[in-house]
Amino acid sequence: MAIVKPSLAKGTRDFSPIEMEKRNYIFNVLKDVFKKFGYNEIQTPSFENLSTLTGKYGDEGDKLIFKILNSGDYLAKAPSELLLSKSSTKLTAHLSEKALRYDLTVPFARYVVMHQNDISLPFKRFQIQPVWRADRPQRGRYREFYQCDVDVVGSDSLLNEAEFILIYHEALKALGLRDFTIKINNRKILTGIAEVIGKPELIVDMTVAIDKLDKIGLEGVNKELLERGFTEDDLEMLKPIILLEGTNYEKLGQLKSVLSSSENGLKGIAEIEDVFAYIQQFQQTENKLDTFVEVDITLARGLNYYTGCIFEVKTNEVAMGSIGGGGRYDDLTGMFGLKGLTGVGVSFGADRIYDVLEELDLFPKRSMTSTKLLIVNFDKNAETFTLPLLYKLRRENIAAELYPTAVKLKKQLSYADAKSIPYVLLVGEEEIQSGKLTLKDMVTGEQKSLKEDTLIEILR
Amino acid sequence: MAIVKPSLAKGTRDFSPIEMEKRNYIFNVLKDVFKKFGYNEIQTPSFENLSTLTGKYGDEGDKLIFKILNSGDYLAKAPSELLLSKSSTKLTAHLSEKALRYDLTVPFARYVVMHQNDISLPFKRFQIQPVWRADRPQRGRYREFYQCDVDVVGSDSLLNEAEFILIYHEALKALGLRDFTIKINNRKILTGIAEVIGKPELIVDMTVAIDKLDKIGLEGVNKELLERGFTEDDLEMLKPIILLEGTNYEKLGQLKSVLSSSENGLKGIAEIEDVFAYIQQFQQTENKLDTFVEVDITLARGLNYYTGCIFEVKTNEVAMGSIGGGGRYDDLTGMFGLKGLTGVGVSFGADRIYDVLEELDLFPKRSMTSTKLLIVNFDKNAETFTLPLLYKLRRENIAAELYPTAVKLKKQLSYADAKSIPYVLLVGEEEIQSGKLTLKDMVTGEQKSLKEDTLIEILR
Repeated sequence: MAIVKPSLAKGTRDFSPIEMEKRNYIFNVLKDVFKKFGYNEIQTPSFENLSTLTGKYGDEGDKLIFKILNSGDYLAKAPSELLLSKSSTKLTAHLSEKALRYDLTVPFARYVVMHQNDISLPFKRFQIQPVWRADRPQRGRYREFYQCDVDVVGSDSLLNEAEFILIYHEALKALGLRDFTIKINNRKILTGIAEVIGKPELIVDMTVAIDKLDKIGLEGVNKELLERGFTEDDLEMLKPIILLEGTNYEKLGQLKSVLSSSENGLKGIAEIEDVFAYIQQFQQTENKLDTFVEVDITLARGLNYYTGCIFEVKTNEVAMGSIGGGGRYDDLTGMFGLKGLTGVGVSFGADRIYDVLEELDLFPKRSMTSTKLLIVNFDKNAETFTLPLLYKLRRENIAAELYPTAVKLKKQLSYADAKSIPYVLLVGEEEIQSGKLTLKDMVTGEQKSLKEDTLIEILR
Repeated sequence: MAIVKPSLAKGTRDFSPIEMEKRNYIFNVLKDVFKKFGYNEIQTPSFENLSTLTGKYGDEGDKLIFKILNSGDYLAKAPSELLLSKSSTKLTAHLSEKALRYDLTVPFARYVVMHQNDISLPFKRFQIQPVWRADRPQRGRYREFYQCDVDVVGSDSLLNEAEFILIYHEALKALGLRDFTIKINNRKILTGIAEVIGKPELIVDMTVAIDKLDKIGLEGVNKELLERGFTEDDLEMLKPIILLEGTNYEKLGQLKSVLSSSENGLKGIAEIEDVFAYIQQFQQTENKLDTFVEVDITLARGLNYYTGCIFEVKTNEVAMGSIGGGGRYDDLTGMFGLKGLTGVGVSFGADRIYDVLEELDLFPKRSMTSTKLLIVNFDKNAETFTLPLLYKLRRENIAAELYPTAVKLKKQLSYADAKSIPYVLLVGEEEIQSGKLTLKDMVTGEQKSLKEDTLIEILR
């Protein structure tokens, strides 16, 4: 067998111990918050029947689904004419019946439908698993990446929406972020705007255009609106809506008068007001709503999908796209034949949150190392002497290692260094005689002579 | 789009909240032990270049690797003659350049070679990730399952072997198992036996046969040995070795005299003795070695791979195959061009351990529920009244939920029941007036009237 110089598959990553610690830190903080709000974890398989996934993500999405080649003599049943004509697209269904998870939403919908008799509604679940997309890899975009979704299905109460805002708030605070904005909009408000302009059929064009306000400014938005079938008169009507200013309640107040003729629009405003009322009741005096929530009617996110409130989260401390988003959908499981199940959910962009914490230096220093103590291995005699101590340390739940061979001290210290082990214990002939151990602090370089009990106390 | 009645891909599983809690419980116990011994977590991608995996698992293994169909017009470059002749096997390399992880060992070897300049040897890692095999699914055998591996590379010290025995011991004890056996053998002893019989070339045949002693008995083993080229005289020599009895040290003593002419055999015995010496030094008086470790020279496990000590773990409380195993290998990374790197590692069979804990009812009852309290939603007024309390409970790190709508009490209680929520809080008009809350214990059915502070104390 020829020796292969190994490489990673395009668009994939290894995670080193330090990266794993940091990723697990994020996931653990998030999980703790989700659980506190009554959400439980589920997992679905990495691959699904191709028919479960196909047609759920649009034509472009279908192309990005990784298909798994059937096992065995997979060509046996493939129609010869498709092979001959090299019709890749048409042949796929004959060569592949399984595909890798593309997102967590469709598998969740399948889960809910298949388990509808064992789950109790409202069903509150979170799911943190990798997904795979055959995208062209580029900086920050991978073919394998984790999604982190929290959803509740089977409850139309706006308490759920309010709790998602609290979940975002609590999770991001717990991660150390101090300045972030949770944007909120409502699909019904967008519907209402299109209605009062008299162009309900152009709602998608309208939202796609005004969603770009941040990037292309009002002038750009107007240009695009004109291209998409709006008139100068329409732009005049839209302008005050797009440029809405003031506190959240002021914005809602202005919207109410603009959308007074649209039942949909007023419903959307009322929903946001209810969500705000819940948050106020929860928190009473602390954390003024306006410091972290912002009504933003340019927010569109997956318009074909969401039917009520829409969320998006941004950090204001680092230039970075959204680090999370979500909303209310009224038909999650219809694609699998279970109609009328409403749901609302949000997701956290773990990779981006990782980059934000890295840039702001917010990863806790201490938790990033697991081994607390390395015992230097001077010789066989010292090794034998330290084994019972090592055993005792571990019994005290202190992560500790003995360097496995008596190599040069320098090499052992550089091992401790590479592994970010904070303390090193030096036990030589002198220490064995005196019963006093020498502890070296790897950060300060300071050395201390101490007894076993004191050592355990320091490390605990 | 036609509605698809959803199903799982063959051989895959969903994990419900309860199953996730139980699985996470096992993984967390294992991770804590691994970390205490200085092992750190890594993860590798779910798919690798096909060339990284092909040829590493034998012909049978290669067939069980799930290949991923190339994206886009994957037939464009496929040779027409292979398409025409429907040569599935030959065509694979043209249609697929990526494949799903088949085990954790080969990706680990790739990792070590690719990161050889950033890792500090000895490199101690653990890895808990799913792997995929195109096996025919059957009871207990899935196409997607988790492996849990712990390995150290770059150290030939037998301290590592001793610590793996301690890791097994500590982890299984921590999971609540009380009676299990860690079997140990050494590849060099097997070599030695084949040498003293004068048939070193038949070592594989010999070990394959004697490995079956448990299943087919001595007679069966002898029959197979004769079929595989051994003589009656050989059987006479093998018999006392196969039927070795007594304590571990007695067995080693007998082996020493039988293998006195084989340098390899004596080396193997000495290695086990050294491992035992380490364990004794570690633990001194407690936990007598013979109560959980057993020399078993019929143990073979992956003979082509292991070069030194070999391990296998069995529980004696439940009829179940091995729940773990591993050993020393002298050439992990040679397949990727990095020679001479020795390593030793073990794995834990998470699915089997799950079944054992289930059968012995060893999963902790408390940790299996996340939400501690459900607040019943009587009406809008009660809802408003309880929101600040809910907020306070969560601030105290108590997982709590308010049922999101004021449906019938019975429905809310059955929700709590389905979710195994231990406490339910009843807050109606009376409670709002008096400021005393009613707490119902869902296990005993008992109800108590209490103040907020007492409630928090009980739940904390």
